Amino acid sequence: MENLFLNHLKKNFPSISVSKLIIAVSGGVDSIVLFHLCLKLKLNFFVAHCNFKLREKESDLDEKFVRDLAIKHNIKFYTKSFNTKKLSNNDNKSIQMVARELRYSWFEELSKELNVKHILTAHHLDDSLETFLINLSRGSGIDGLLGIPEVNDTVYRPLLIFKKDEILSYAKENKITWREDSSNKKREYLRNQIRLEVIPKLKEINPNLLDNFSKSIDRLQQSKSIIKDKMDDFIKNVSFTRDEKIYFEINKIKKVSNIDAYLYELLKKYNFTQWDDIRDLLDSQSGKQIISKTHKLLKDREYLILVKNSEVENKSLLINKSSKEVAVSVGKIKVSIAKK
Amino acid sequence: MENLFLNHLKKNFPSISVSKLIIAVSGGVDSIVLFHLCLKLKLNFFVAHCNFKLREKESDLDEKFVRDLAIKHNIKFYTKSFNTKKLSNNDNKSIQMVARELRYSWFEELSKELNVKHILTAHHLDDSLETFLINLSRGSGIDGLLGIPEVNDTVYRPLLIFKKDEILSYAKENKITWREDSSNKKREYLRNQIRLEVIPKLKEINPNLLDNFSKSIDRLQQSKSIIKDKMDDFIKNVSFTRDEKIYFEINKIKKVSNIDAYLYELLKKYNFTQWDDIRDLLDSQSGKQIISKTHKLLKDREYLILVKNSEVENKSLLINKSSKEVAVSVGKIKVSIAKK
Repeated sequence: MENLFLNHLKKNFPSISVSKLIIAVSGGVDSIVLFHLCLKLKLNFFVAHCNFKLREKESDLDEKFVRDLAIKHNIKFYTKSFNTKKLSNNDNKSIQMVARELRYSWFEELSKELNVKHILTAHHLDDSLETFLINLSRGSGIDGLLGIPEVNDTVYRPLLIFKKDEILSYAKENKITWREDSSNKKREYLRNQIRLEVIPKLKEINPNLLDNFSKSIDRLQQSKSIIKDKMDDFIKNVSFTRDEKIYFEINKIKKVSNIDAYLYELLKKYNFTQWDDIRDLLDSQSGKQIISKTHKLLKDREYLILVKNSEVENKSLLINKSSKEVAVSVGKIKVSIAKK
Repeated sequence: MENLFLNHLKKNFPSISVSKLIIAVSGGVDSIVLFHLCLKLKLNFFVAHCNFKLREKESDLDEKFVRDLAIKHNIKFYTKSFNTKKLSNNDNKSIQMVARELRYSWFEELSKELNVKHILTAHHLDDSLETFLINLSRGSGIDGLLGIPEVNDTVYRPLLIFKKDEILSYAKENKITWREDSSNKKREYLRNQIRLEVIPKLKEINPNLLDNFSKSIDRLQQSKSIIKDKMDDFIKNVSFTRDEKIYFEINKIKKVSNIDAYLYELLKKYNFTQWDDIRDLLDSQSGKQIISKTHKLLKDREYLILVKNSEVENKSLLINKSSKEVAVSVGKIKVSIAKK
């Protein structure tokens, strides 16, 4: 496994071996194995640990376990605690979603602070299949069916070529100790249900499942790259930008035989979801518009015009008692305390 | 369901309502419901039934059941029996695969004989999800992950918009009787295992699974249509045909950043599988070639040349004792009986 890992880094992420890294270590077997691999290859890394405070003492013991391991090997250790449950209640989001947002936003902060451009996480092939099946059961298209991306901005996932079984075997062979996360065994979370009830069945039916899944997502990634090429051609052909607005030429869009497919690819990144309305917009009166969380799409004679939706900022502001002004994206807001 | 079915036909397959049809009826609930729907809508159809002789008396009772039903409603009935087990042993293929080949090749014969251009089968959304998961566990790319196609040549599948549950409810509400296929309950077949053990679990975890799956394959179909557009552009740009040979210009192929993706899309329909070798062929000496079951890809200076592989015919010939000649694709072979 060490050799496979090393060759994988050399071939696909040469920058990892020569850069300063942050490694996300929860204390579970995957991230602990990642820690040991990086140690063995003498990579230049820090350890970062999130304490989501979700399992009372257990969470604190995880933190201690990772801290002790880092200290023992003379690796710098960073940790941050979150009141995940409360934030999840406030935002009306699932705990897992909130934890993910907190984790990645802290990693980003930390990487800026430490001037590090590579954050490594220990996701593996089984995780990727889980993500695939979750997204399938949510109705995702090809983007959601690519599994977990190997690189996403500054986050790298060099263990995605390995199966959970391979990681476990490596840990046992090398007498590595780790901490079991008791919440991995709970059946209440969607991901855990897929992990514990669906995937074992699929593996039993086909022992080559994971290797073949890996081939499937490679093929899908290739398909995606062809779509990207076509969309680059298409965008160049049907649109232009002026004064921070993107103009799409309706006549040119209408020339393709599969308009829905192109409109979706063109506009999905601007958070639109009303695909039928957008299709109708092509033939509607000038002046009609469709609004997403972040953008506005306006019909104006022969164009659809895309503008950033800066009018409404749906943001909570924390205002200090002593503040007199608060900065927002369009300028400053003056504040004062009103008498009752 | 009748209305949904009718609207679906009108909108997506207007030719079905005005043509002569063959309906494939096994005797199971899906095809019996399809039969009743077509009856109700007064479509102009024949019934075709395959007897694969796999379940002894049961198979013959299925045939009788469908025949009686057709006669009762004054619909013309066609049937054919196959020695499926023997053929499966001869060809070293799975019984299910042989049955599928036999079924579709007989349907094709029959449609020519009866001069009918539409053959309807009763596949539904659950079947499509099974196919998706089977292909995923085999490592398919986007083509295998599109589920079951609604139209494939002359075969139409107008029930793909319905779930198995909806078909069952319709049958029960309308007091329709059908025959259970006992092999549907056996766990030995891959498809049955996926059907009986994996999909129920996925549905339990997410009751909207099928609706979302249906959205996923719609999205994938849209992706596929964009890939097709790009490949049409690409083929036009990098290749030309002369003397039944296709010439691919190597320099032009090399201009894309994702060569593997394009080579795969260009050549998969010619039965190649040696993708690494094909990639290497771009840079190898003139004269090198790669052979598939049906084609040959030859490097010749700045071209890869694709030719049909007519030299080797891998075919068994049944020769009659009294024959003096046997026709093959390239001419005739003279035969005579040798003395020992």
